[in-house]
Amino acid sequence: MSRVVERLCVAGVGLIGGSLALAAKEAGLVGEVVGLGRTAANLETARARGIVDRIATDPRDAAAGADAICLAAPVGSCAALAEALRPHARPGAILTDVGSVKASLVAALEARWTPGLVVGAHPIAGSEASGAAAARADLFQGRPCILTPTPATDPAALAAMRTLWAGVGARVVEMPAATHDEILARVSHLPHLVAYALVAACDAARVDGAPVLEWAGSGFRDTTRIAGSPGELWRDIALANAPALGRALGEFRHALDRLEGLVAAADADGLGAVLEAARAVRRRLGTRERA
Amino acid sequence: MSRVVERLCVAGVGLIGGSLALAAKEAGLVGEVVGLGRTAANLETARARGIVDRIATDPRDAAAGADAICLAAPVGSCAALAEALRPHARPGAILTDVGSVKASLVAALEARWTPGLVVGAHPIAGSEASGAAAARADLFQGRPCILTPTPATDPAALAAMRTLWAGVGARVVEMPAATHDEILARVSHLPHLVAYALVAACDAARVDGAPVLEWAGSGFRDTTRIAGSPGELWRDIALANAPALGRALGEFRHALDRLEGLVAAADADGLGAVLEAARAVRRRLGTRERA
Repeated sequence: MSRVVERLCVAGVGLIGGSLALAAKEAGLVGEVVGLGRTAANLETARARGIVDRIATDPRDAAAGADAICLAAPVGSCAALAEALRPHARPGAILTDVGSVKASLVAALEARWTPGLVVGAHPIAGSEASGAAAARADLFQGRPCILTPTPATDPAALAAMRTLWAGVGARVVEMPAATHDEILARVSHLPHLVAYALVAACDAARVDGAPVLEWAGSGFRDTTRIAGSPGELWRDIALANAPALGRALGEFRHALDRLEGLVAAADADGLGAVLEAARAVRRRLGTRERA
Repeated sequence: MSRVVERLCVAGVGLIGGSLALAAKEAGLVGEVVGLGRTAANLETARARGIVDRIATDPRDAAAGADAICLAAPVGSCAALAEALRPHARPGAILTDVGSVKASLVAALEARWTPGLVVGAHPIAGSEASGAAAARADLFQGRPCILTPTPATDPAALAAMRTLWAGVGARVVEMPAATHDEILARVSHLPHLVAYALVAACDAARVDGAPVLEWAGSGFRDTTRIAGSPGELWRDIALANAPALGRALGEFRHALDRLEGLVAAADADGLGAVLEAARAVRRRLGTRERA
C-alpha cells in the first residue's frame, strides 16, 4: 500500500495508539512513527517492539515534521496535548484522535488547531489490556472505525484518515459526533460503569462477616471483565460524555426496575417473558469477535 | 473409584444434570443412570452421548429402584418433581438437587421427602449453554460445590453426596443454605439480572431512529454473555431468592448511584479513585477459569 502519512506522531503509545502504529507500519501506510508518552518504560517497550521508530517525551520533538498527529491518550488529557503540540507542528499537520467520546473532544481540538485539520476518529476495538506491550497489528481488522467530521473538516484530511483506518483493516463509517456519543454511551460507556459498580458493590459485600467475591464464578468474571480497564480512561470518558451517559443510565435503571418489579410481584410469566426476550436478543449478537 | 450410588436418577438432563451423570459414570461412581425429562429429543441426545443408560418420561419408571435422585430441573419445578417421584421411590432413596437457590428449595424438598434424606447441593459451574448436548465430564473439575445440610440431614446421606461431588472433581464445601443464598444473590443472581437488563435497555434504545446494538463490541458481548442463559432458569432463581436478591440489588444501586453522582458532580479525582479501586479488585479475580 502507498504511504498516507510520511511521519506520524502517536501521543500515547498504549493498546490503541500502539496498535495503530504497528498496523500502519506493517501495511506500509506510514514512513516514520514518533511516539510521545509520559512513561519511559512504556516508550522503551514500544521502541523495542518496533511499534515506534523514535520516542519523544517533549512535545517539540514529537510534533516536529509530523504530517499527522494521533492523540491516543486518555480523553481528558487530549486538549492539553493539542495545545502543547500546536506551536511545534507543521501548519498542514492533521490532528486526529481515537477517543471513545467525540462531540466535546472534537470541539475542544478544533478550538486549538488549524481550521479544518481535525478529524475525530473512534476505532471500536480494544480490551481491558493496556500499554504498548498489549498492542497488536490485527486489533482493528474487521472492526468499525467511526469518523466524525464536522462542517469545518477539510475533505483531503478526512480522506487521508479514511485511507489510514481502512488500510489497517477497519470498516470506516462516518456519522455526526453527537450520534456517535449517544450510541457509545449505551453500548460501551454504560456497560463499563455497570461493571465497575458490580465489582465495587460485591467487593464491599460481606455475608456472615466474610467477603463474597471468593465465590465469583465465570459468569461474574465475564460480566465484569471490562472493569479491569484503566480507571483513568473511563473516568475521562464518563465525564466527557456525561449527558448521554446519564440518559443511558436512566434507560438501564428503567429496565432493571422493571425486572425487580416483576420479581417483587412474583410475576413468573411476566418475568420469564422479559428474560426470554432479552436472551433471544443476546443470542443474535453472538459471541465476542475474537478470543 | 468405588460406587457411591448403584442407580442414579437424574431429573433434567441438561448442562448440569448431564455433566454430573457423565462425570459420575466416567469416574465409576454410579452403576446405572436413568434420565427423566420433558423433551424427548434432549433425552435421546443424552442416551446417544452415553450420558444416561435409560430414559424415562414417567416419574414411576424414573424413580423405580433408584438409590439417589438428583433434581437438575429449573428451581421452580423441583418441588412438584419431588412430589411426583416420592410415591415410586425406595424408602431409603436420597434426594439431592443442583439449584442455585437453597433455603426455600431445600425446605420445600424436606417437606416432601423421607426425613433426613434430602441433601441440597449447588455446583458453581456452568455457562450460558444448555441441554444434554452441552454436557461435559470435566465441568466440575476444580469448581466449588456447596452442600447445605440442615439439622435434619442424615450424616450417611450427606457423606454419600460429598463423595459423589468430590469424585467428579469438585471442591466440596458446606455452609448453611441462608448463607449460600446471600452469597449467590450477589456474585451470580445479581449479575444475571443486570446482564438481562443491559440487553433489554440497549435493545429498546434508538439513536436517530436506528437500533444501537449493531455497534456492540466485545465489551458489551462479554458483559452480557450470561443473558444468553435460559430465561426460565433465571426467572425461577430470582423468584426463589427474591429477598436476598433485593438486598443485592440495593447494594448495586448504591454503588451505581455513587458513580453517577461523581459523574454528575464532575468529580474527576473521586470518580478516578473509585474506578481504580474496582479495577484493582477485578484484576485480582483474574480471567475466567476455562475458555
